[in-house]
Amino acid sequence: MADNKKMVEAITSMEEDFAKWYTDIVKKAELIEYTSVKGCMVIRPYGYAIWENIQRILDGMFKETGHENVNMPMFIPESLLQKEKDHVEGFAPEVAWVTFGGSEQLEERLCVRPTSETLFCEHFANIVHSYRDLPKLYNQWVSVVRWEKTTRPFLRSREFLWQEGHTIHATAEEAIAETEQMLNIYTKFCEEYLAMPVIKGRKTDSDKFAGAEATYCIEALMHDGKALQAGTSHYFGDGFAKAFDIQFTDKNNKQQYVHETSWGVTTRLIGAIIMTHGDDNGLVLPPAVTPIQVVVLPIAAHKPGVTEKAAEIKERLSKVARVKLDDSDQSPGWKFAEYEMKGVPLRLEIGPRDMEQNQCVIVRRDTREKIVVSLDELETKIPELLTAVRDGIYNKALQNREKKTYACKTMEEIITSLEQNGDGFIKAMWCGDEACEDKVKETTGVGSRCLPLNQEIIADTCVCCGKPAHQLVYWGKAY
Amino acid sequence: MADNKKMVEAITSMEEDFAKWYTDIVKKAELIEYTSVKGCMVIRPYGYAIWENIQRILDGMFKETGHENVNMPMFIPESLLQKEKDHVEGFAPEVAWVTFGGSEQLEERLCVRPTSETLFCEHFANIVHSYRDLPKLYNQWVSVVRWEKTTRPFLRSREFLWQEGHTIHATAEEAIAETEQMLNIYTKFCEEYLAMPVIKGRKTDSDKFAGAEATYCIEALMHDGKALQAGTSHYFGDGFAKAFDIQFTDKNNKQQYVHETSWGVTTRLIGAIIMTHGDDNGLVLPPAVTPIQVVVLPIAAHKPGVTEKAAEIKERLSKVARVKLDDSDQSPGWKFAEYEMKGVPLRLEIGPRDMEQNQCVIVRRDTREKIVVSLDELETKIPELLTAVRDGIYNKALQNREKKTYACKTMEEIITSLEQNGDGFIKAMWCGDEACEDKVKETTGVGSRCLPLNQEIIADTCVCCGKPAHQLVYWGKAY
Repeated sequence: MADNKKMVEAITSMEEDFAKWYTDIVKKAELIEYTSVKGCMVIRPYGYAIWENIQRILDGMFKETGHENVNMPMFIPESLLQKEKDHVEGFAPEVAWVTFGGSEQLEERLCVRPTSETLFCEHFANIVHSYRDLPKLYNQWVSVVRWEKTTRPFLRSREFLWQEGHTIHATAEEAIAETEQMLNIYTKFCEEYLAMPVIKGRKTDSDKFAGAEATYCIEALMHDGKALQAGTSHYFGDGFAKAFDIQFTDKNNKQQYVHETSWGVTTRLIGAIIMTHGDDNGLVLPPAVTPIQVVVLPIAAHKPGVTEKAAEIKERLSKVARVKLDDSDQSPGWKFAEYEMKGVPLRLEIGPRDMEQNQCVIVRRDTREKIVVSLDELETKIPELLTAVRDGIYNKALQNREKKTYACKTMEEIITSLEQNGDGFIKAMWCGDEACEDKVKETTGVGSRCLPLNQEIIADTCVCCGKPAHQLVYWGKAY
Repeated sequence: MADNKKMVEAITSMEEDFAKWYTDIVKKAELIEYTSVKGCMVIRPYGYAIWENIQRILDGMFKETGHENVNMPMFIPESLLQKEKDHVEGFAPEVAWVTFGGSEQLEERLCVRPTSETLFCEHFANIVHSYRDLPKLYNQWVSVVRWEKTTRPFLRSREFLWQEGHTIHATAEEAIAETEQMLNIYTKFCEEYLAMPVIKGRKTDSDKFAGAEATYCIEALMHDGKALQAGTSHYFGDGFAKAFDIQFTDKNNKQQYVHETSWGVTTRLIGAIIMTHGDDNGLVLPPAVTPIQVVVLPIAAHKPGVTEKAAEIKERLSKVARVKLDDSDQSPGWKFAEYEMKGVPLRLEIGPRDMEQNQCVIVRRDTREKIVVSLDELETKIPELLTAVRDGIYNKALQNREKKTYACKTMEEIITSLEQNGDGFIKAMWCGDEACEDKVKETTGVGSRCLPLNQEIIADTCVCCGKPAHQLVYWGKAY
């Protein structure tokens, strides 16, 4: 068994090597384990429990807004993938192909779904006939496969878990409203539940999803100043509908094509949580999705009544929070380090002296602040403190983003900012020309992250070519 | 839109053609839709909602007994699959092989998991070192692929959804106790929640899971007299542990191999529900897992106050049941047929005359019994009636099984029973010789389903060879 000192030594500090700090955490906090399947991972119980909480909350938000879950096959026949031209061009280079069933070669190759637009479209074409059949508001929780060259746990792996929503509507307006609604749901989820501030925006044309008319996204800034796309919501217009012949009879008895959307978030949200809130002692988990909200630790547990009191507190608190009692024979020091590593928001210590005074000590993971709380007030104090942790880590992340967001008017200013400030969001005007977008990337290393929906005018001219520009773009290096 | 008459005509009767009745129901009740991916299906919202309820209940039972969810890769490298000899022999002929990632041929083929023992074993070998690390009680909810030649929705498809539990223990006794515990959980789930009586038993050696020392199962009898394996629980001993070198240091500082189990149920439970409870009007769903427990239908909805009253009842009942209000402009006759097809346990009708008398009419799906209920008593009456439906369909299924279970002492008796009574469970003694098992199958067409844990002695001699026999076997044709 590791002792306290050994565990703390085992994590690389963020400042020293952020990438190594990250991979240390995913292993030491027991979120994942590597496998002999290259580019794929085991999501261990502690990591999967975070995903289960994410699923539960988001699934509730989807159902409240009228969405239903379905399950599509994991395979897509090659001919079906090829039906929408842009879509197949975007995905074919990175799919895994099944070519044999048992010992027999298949007549047609099947790819393992990288995303399921084509399957949903085929299904919609089968089941939709009349305006009465619309809208269809579907979602599925599955895993998808993209044959990435370089992989990192949660951030980029060959297989990852996600939800993919797919909806069809009678009109473009309804479909656009759906795209916006889902972007807003993702924003609310990230900000309120994950305590992670995000920028809502639209991707430039070069960065759109393969086959989409418009791709909306939420972009978060990690602790190291790199951006991370936390969710996307696509408006397809009737492009897929035409490719797959999804038509319906409208109220005037005329044939019309449907208008379509899709939207998704993935297990990379767990990577975002780690890199937004974590510190040199390990994870710092948002109270809404952490597997354990409060860990109860008996101190001097051999003294009479301490273990019993700790168990009693655990029972009481189980009604208002997700609580774990650790009454194992590990030392308190080991336990402190262990639950800091695991990012448990609140540690509750109860010992003989506390009991004498009918109180306990609560330590916040995020600030390490110690708070003495009367045992009579636990049921109200714990939820308050969990809210305080959420607010605290949200504000810290917001301050980090604000500190690391730089307005630049020229290419030179971008280069200087990167040199002096390191990575972050660069706000700069853009004329809309793809050539300028490419040149900024080549020259400075930062790519366009999004056109924020909340636009500002910080200059009159394009940061690259100097021609008139009316659009602000967030630029950055990205995961 | 289909009218009442058209819908009812569209279902083949059970007596006429049970197989066609089944496929009619899965389509007409909107449980599934076919796809261009041969042998795979779309599980539609109504079908998937049943699975979500099954998941929620079972997942709760797994967690209550200390199990944790994880997520393994969907791919297994060929060399990993080959590590346990019996296992690879059992599964290799029916797996789908991925041979290309993008445009590059893989150095080693990957199969899409048909089951995940090998992945769990590799993981266990990585993370288990000491007796303190045991037991590990893991489960995952995923889909698996088996390249079947002939497929039927839910019963046998190339991809299906399931849960697979995998556990390792310090001793054989603990692992055997786990195997039994999970068989008991499956039994409780099927009998209480699915209202489906099952026989608990052990598979004969020829019918064991590939790599298992013992396979336990629950067997249900469908309406047509065919058996269906509803769940399995395997004890592996230390066979996999030796193949994958999963060792731990025990309390005496000695290296020991772990003892292992796995257990699973699949979406074929939905097929079992259909064939256990369904009738010529469609599905009959168990109240615990049905997406809709009560459908509220306004009668003469154009009369003042009816729609409002129906909405008010829906609101009130939502606190005690899963309720849907259908105030669409379809005729009551159409709605009656529709919700009978969908197997909704209770239909609540409310019209102007009911309102005058402060009552409503509730119709049970299973018996079609009409019950007049005072509106003041709804919150207590509805849960009572749901329990009554569960008990009613359980008893009906149990009677069907008892009626169709036949004790036979000779091969001739088996043949005669099948001719006179049709399919069912045949109870007959067996000497334990695999040759006899094979001969019964060849001669009569019924295979061994299980050695029931609850043994009886109905004769002294083997039904096949006439030698002394001490074991009772349930035989039958199976899905």
